[in-house]
Amino acid sequence: MVNVLVCSAGRRVKVVQYLRQNINKSGGKVITVDCNVNAPALYFGDEFDIIPQIDNEEYLASIIAVCKKYKIKGILSLIDPELEMLAKNKKIFDEIGVTLVLSPLDVIQYCYDKQETYNYLTTLGIPAIPTFSSLKTVTSLIERKELSFPLVVKPGKGSASIGINIVNNKIALKNAFSEGDDLIIQPFYKDLEFGIDVYVDLISGDLVDMFIKEKVKMRSGETDKAISVHNIEIETLVKKFISRTGFVGPIDIDCFKYKGNYYISEINPRFGGGYPHAQEMGCDFMDYINNNLIGKENKPYTNYRYEEDFVMMKYDDVFLYKK
Amino acid sequence: MVNVLVCSAGRRVKVVQYLRQNINKSGGKVITVDCNVNAPALYFGDEFDIIPQIDNEEYLASIIAVCKKYKIKGILSLIDPELEMLAKNKKIFDEIGVTLVLSPLDVIQYCYDKQETYNYLTTLGIPAIPTFSSLKTVTSLIERKELSFPLVVKPGKGSASIGINIVNNKIALKNAFSEGDDLIIQPFYKDLEFGIDVYVDLISGDLVDMFIKEKVKMRSGETDKAISVHNIEIETLVKKFISRTGFVGPIDIDCFKYKGNYYISEINPRFGGGYPHAQEMGCDFMDYINNNLIGKENKPYTNYRYEEDFVMMKYDDVFLYKK
Repeated sequence: MVNVLVCSAGRRVKVVQYLRQNINKSGGKVITVDCNVNAPALYFGDEFDIIPQIDNEEYLASIIAVCKKYKIKGILSLIDPELEMLAKNKKIFDEIGVTLVLSPLDVIQYCYDKQETYNYLTTLGIPAIPTFSSLKTVTSLIERKELSFPLVVKPGKGSASIGINIVNNKIALKNAFSEGDDLIIQPFYKDLEFGIDVYVDLISGDLVDMFIKEKVKMRSGETDKAISVHNIEIETLVKKFISRTGFVGPIDIDCFKYKGNYYISEINPRFGGGYPHAQEMGCDFMDYINNNLIGKENKPYTNYRYEEDFVMMKYDDVFLYKK
Repeated sequence: MVNVLVCSAGRRVKVVQYLRQNINKSGGKVITVDCNVNAPALYFGDEFDIIPQIDNEEYLASIIAVCKKYKIKGILSLIDPELEMLAKNKKIFDEIGVTLVLSPLDVIQYCYDKQETYNYLTTLGIPAIPTFSSLKTVTSLIERKELSFPLVVKPGKGSASIGINIVNNKIALKNAFSEGDDLIIQPFYKDLEFGIDVYVDLISGDLVDMFIKEKVKMRSGETDKAISVHNIEIETLVKKFISRTGFVGPIDIDCFKYKGNYYISEINPRFGGGYPHAQEMGCDFMDYINNNLIGKENKPYTNYRYEEDFVMMKYDDVFLYKK
């Protein structure tokens, strides 16, 4: 029996629901916190608290107080800035017996900066989308015909599809890119796009499960529709990636197929927005979390645990509360 | 017992669910159609069919065939271009005994063009957001101090928040506005924003119900959070609007408060995206529709049928199907 805390629950109602279904079975509780009383997922846990924002100096003390109040055994977070904040303070949580269901700080830090992600993956021998921060480098690569238009100019940090510019010639590139604005340049390597939900055991560090989906329709950077697929190249790529890095817990990987090759484009060291697809098809990461929190290792990955060709569609549901 | 057809069901799962709950009670069925097999709401009716797109020449014949196949009594549509298409062919539907749960063509046509909406409302003596299609007119109004910055430049047609430019001076205005692009200019009349779900009886033409919500947070033009309110000025404005126009069935009205006054900014002659708020709080438009389709008039509006201060939040749910 464990109690689990979900931080920055936000709009991630499904994740809270799935976790609660699992944790409640053995008598545990899911506690949700958020700084915003209008976060719908708050209201889907067993209990909730409103806490200060991450940048508030009271934030950490509040989380610790919540952990003590509800005898929390494990913490999950659903937004990026908080992952780093929690990982930085791992020692404090260790001392009060709270497990962070989260990768260590050193690998988390590679995830938020696309240039860093590329450099890191390349060093490890993992194919990644070529990423450049210098216009001069890009221009000379174009001249040497080692890079060609269209190119993508986008913020080096940040998620979703905000601020993405696709450029088709040198003038457009020069207009879109300005040094110092923390922009990066990438080739347009996207024939197909995939998302992979991965769980790595917190105790053994072994890969436990993966769920591969092809993303079909995007709406403001979020996947609207996706299809479950089996894909040996992606499976091999993910296995290699996990064996060479220290990521643990739930991870969401974005991957592009381009001219027959696969490239990792993004790593989110947390549950991705498309995770419900995996869960609905039987990849129960919540059970892996529960096992790990009661000190039990999960069986290492052997094969796909889901069927191909299932389409997931998102739609709006609503929740009401009295002010 | 009536069977109802929902056209262009799209992502509007809640509307289909609410309608089905009501229609099934008396033994009727809800049939959904869409041109896209990936439209999640398709799968929440009793039966569904895939039909051609609205601009396909087979479209109308398909709808009629679906009506005959399922002995349809009433048709609802959830997207704008289709409303006009259906209303234009009212006679054909009349002949086969199918009621369009929809306003007549002459009033629908005022809704999609913001300049037309403004002209129409002004003629009727209903306060609307001043709307201009000529830069010259706007410039001279600014010079005469009858209009002031900030101004909003946006497409005269279309919905959501796509292509909206807020300008603060003449140069920015001139850059944002180009004649012939079907843009309009409006003052920035938005201290508060409200959405009103209205039902007007299909038989008597009388106002039956209204639900007023203040919109709190917008995300790509859609309301994420809203609070139910009672507001006598808006109530009076809506009563006046309905009594002076020929709208019937479900209508969604957008309204801005600015310096203490209320202005209608948009009329959607269909269920609005925020309708679930009204339904969840007891304003059961599905029951009004069912009554009308069995030939029964609904009682005219007397007072609010909902409580104030209830917050509605949207969140993503998911649905799976095998390809």
